[in-house]
Amino acid sequence: MPGDSHHGNETPEPNIVIVGAGFAGLSCARALKNAAAKITVIDRHNYHLFQPLLYQVATASLSPADIAQPIRSILKDQANTRVLLGEVTAIDKQARQVTANGAKLPFDYLIVATGARHGYFGKDHWAEHAPGIKTVDDATRVRADILLAFERAEVEPDPARRKALLTFVVIGGGPTGVEMAGAIAELARNSITRDFRSITPRCASVILVEAGLRLLPTLPETLSKEAGRALERLGVEVRTGEAVTNVAAASVVTLKETIAAHTIIWAAGVRASAAGTWLDTPTDRAGRVVVNRDFSIPGYRRIFVTGDTAAYHLTETSFLPGVAPAAKQAGDWIGRMIAARICGHIGPEPFRYADLGNMATIGRREAVARLGRMEMKGVIGWLLWSLAHIYFLIGFRNRLSVAISWAWSYITYQRGVRLITGRPAAPSQKIEEAA
Amino acid sequence: MPGDSHHGNETPEPNIVIVGAGFAGLSCARALKNAAAKITVIDRHNYHLFQPLLYQVATASLSPADIAQPIRSILKDQANTRVLLGEVTAIDKQARQVTANGAKLPFDYLIVATGARHGYFGKDHWAEHAPGIKTVDDATRVRADILLAFERAEVEPDPARRKALLTFVVIGGGPTGVEMAGAIAELARNSITRDFRSITPRCASVILVEAGLRLLPTLPETLSKEAGRALERLGVEVRTGEAVTNVAAASVVTLKETIAAHTIIWAAGVRASAAGTWLDTPTDRAGRVVVNRDFSIPGYRRIFVTGDTAAYHLTETSFLPGVAPAAKQAGDWIGRMIAARICGHIGPEPFRYADLGNMATIGRREAVARLGRMEMKGVIGWLLWSLAHIYFLIGFRNRLSVAISWAWSYITYQRGVRLITGRPAAPSQKIEEAA
Repeated sequence: MPGDSHHGNETPEPNIVIVGAGFAGLSCARALKNAAAKITVIDRHNYHLFQPLLYQVATASLSPADIAQPIRSILKDQANTRVLLGEVTAIDKQARQVTANGAKLPFDYLIVATGARHGYFGKDHWAEHAPGIKTVDDATRVRADILLAFERAEVEPDPARRKALLTFVVIGGGPTGVEMAGAIAELARNSITRDFRSITPRCASVILVEAGLRLLPTLPETLSKEAGRALERLGVEVRTGEAVTNVAAASVVTLKETIAAHTIIWAAGVRASAAGTWLDTPTDRAGRVVVNRDFSIPGYRRIFVTGDTAAYHLTETSFLPGVAPAAKQAGDWIGRMIAARICGHIGPEPFRYADLGNMATIGRREAVARLGRMEMKGVIGWLLWSLAHIYFLIGFRNRLSVAISWAWSYITYQRGVRLITGRPAAPSQKIEEAA
Repeated sequence: MPGDSHHGNETPEPNIVIVGAGFAGLSCARALKNAAAKITVIDRHNYHLFQPLLYQVATASLSPADIAQPIRSILKDQANTRVLLGEVTAIDKQARQVTANGAKLPFDYLIVATGARHGYFGKDHWAEHAPGIKTVDDATRVRADILLAFERAEVEPDPARRKALLTFVVIGGGPTGVEMAGAIAELARNSITRDFRSITPRCASVILVEAGLRLLPTLPETLSKEAGRALERLGVEVRTGEAVTNVAAASVVTLKETIAAHTIIWAAGVRASAAGTWLDTPTDRAGRVVVNRDFSIPGYRRIFVTGDTAAYHLTETSFLPGVAPAAKQAGDWIGRMIAARICGHIGPEPFRYADLGNMATIGRREAVARLGRMEMKGVIGWLLWSLAHIYFLIGFRNRLSVAISWAWSYITYQRGVRLITGRPAAPSQKIEEAA
């Protein structure tokens, strides 16, 4: 088999390189804790990010540090593992080398779990006007955009421009889009309502645009409907079946109309990282690498791709979903399988995805959730959602801090993290003279 | 008196403009809570910052949101006050107008409390190599610099370059310099000590350089000595009486030698904001506006300058110090005085500074403090320091979060906020091949 010619000639301590320290990469590294191997984890950032709560950073409920933890400190007691901050630019499958920051790292086993970025279906120029939220810097940028829109509206004399400043369009009706739209509506309606003098934040428009016929397509249809109703109770205008045809500075064009909106947030699609290019291996339309039943790529038994970067068939027509529990399970399975192979043991049972369910929260007291075959909504759904997220934050010291922040927000409606940072803070337009 | 010709012709509700929402500006606004006036608070940032703890953001102990709070939410219930996010560029004393973001705001009373930036004694090109810490963005930049230095050292094969990467020079032996040096030493010696594989963080050099003969010149000499000893116990090399003559990329030149250091932090001097230029009024050498006994500027009874922007004589030879309690007291006094004037009441007693004391912390269990005539050090000093800072954080929702962070750091030596954000995270040099 090409690239596998050294099989059986392993050094006693094989080099295992894991690219990406998201849920998949980190679970894989942890599963290799006791393996007799030299493990290297490479990531572009020095922290592991709890991405499911990133929208709460973007809407000023949580601080970045509440949901990010240094990779080094997670792995500090794992003596067989080192962590490198670096950017991978190429992979040589034959020579078994990863190029990172210009240097070449040899590997015997390679796991690529570099996640995904926003995908604009080929309209990459939309990105400038409709940023998505995948990294801490994305989230603090969107947070500043949202907060600055209110600041600028406060001093904007022209009614049409003020209206555009107070219109927020979220594109995409999956969990991220639903959660963002709900969180922006609550920010405007409850948290900052007494902060301004010229504008009335509760009159802000929050519009959720989804091309498909319903929100949250991975949940049962009853819950999709419930989510739509809950969003509407918060004042969100939900528009399903309305594809976006163009995005420009301060406007969104849909099949039905042009919406003047200063703040546009993209939650409609993702595109896998460049792993397919690095590995020169087949990908699907979203750029995900097509993998075998054991997550290896065709022709290479020791190169694995997983997490949001991989297209893993569960059935003929369905894929392993791009959610945190799936990534964790896959990473863990790959780690255990490699550990067994190194020892010459029989590997774990073939990978089987345990579908724990699916959920999305809408504002501060409603959520929809499917747990196995059970469906939940309303406050019960919200409590379940909170518990699940705090549970998954275990290993993060910050679960206590997050719990306190949530409790505080819940009781007082306040958002503690309304900071405009990382850019010139002052709005560029004129301040009108005092009324 | 020039500029005061409208005296007695006030509108029933005079316009009061406060530029800067630091300790001085905010205290002034709050003291005007019940005044029959239209108050406008302008700041370049949307948050008030608890600057005394900013060094803890720079050394990864606290998140920015722990010490920053939106100005709007602080003042939301004060109906006579509006908040504008904006940058002041000019002040017309005769026409009584402040130019902010290109628009002109009329005022009857003006308070300028725009603080200070770092001062490099005319060597402004040093700023690039030796950043100071005055804003949230400064602090997150320095945090990234410090953390990246360790990351780069981990993959640096050349011993001399590795040593420079692990050398941290803090210039200036005042409270900020002492606290920064202690915090970096603790980060290296305790918090991240097991995180790396190639380097030994506890072997990092932290050097504190002070041109004067002793640290903390505003404290009694016994405490200066105690602070020096406490820093040395943490492994900091304290060099007093050693003026810096040049700063370049990765090197500091003092009167005695050239130190190769990748991370250089400036805590040696401040320079007042541009208020003196805006107001075309005399300033001292540090750019501070010379003010009268009531903080007004010469010739203008309704224009006040305070906080770090003002040079206020306490005695012939001493000035109101540039510390938070002094700024708060001055701002509060000015607010009460204006409120009385508007009503035609007799104003408050002449301003008198209540000197509460002075303190600096060294690492996680020592501090030196003077409280009135009492001197404290060691753990007692540290407890006093912690209580004082948590007390002054009242009004910040985050005092609980800060207390938890401190307790956590104290018990575990961990730092929770070790995030490299806001810049390309990956070090630009090569990663060496796996050893």
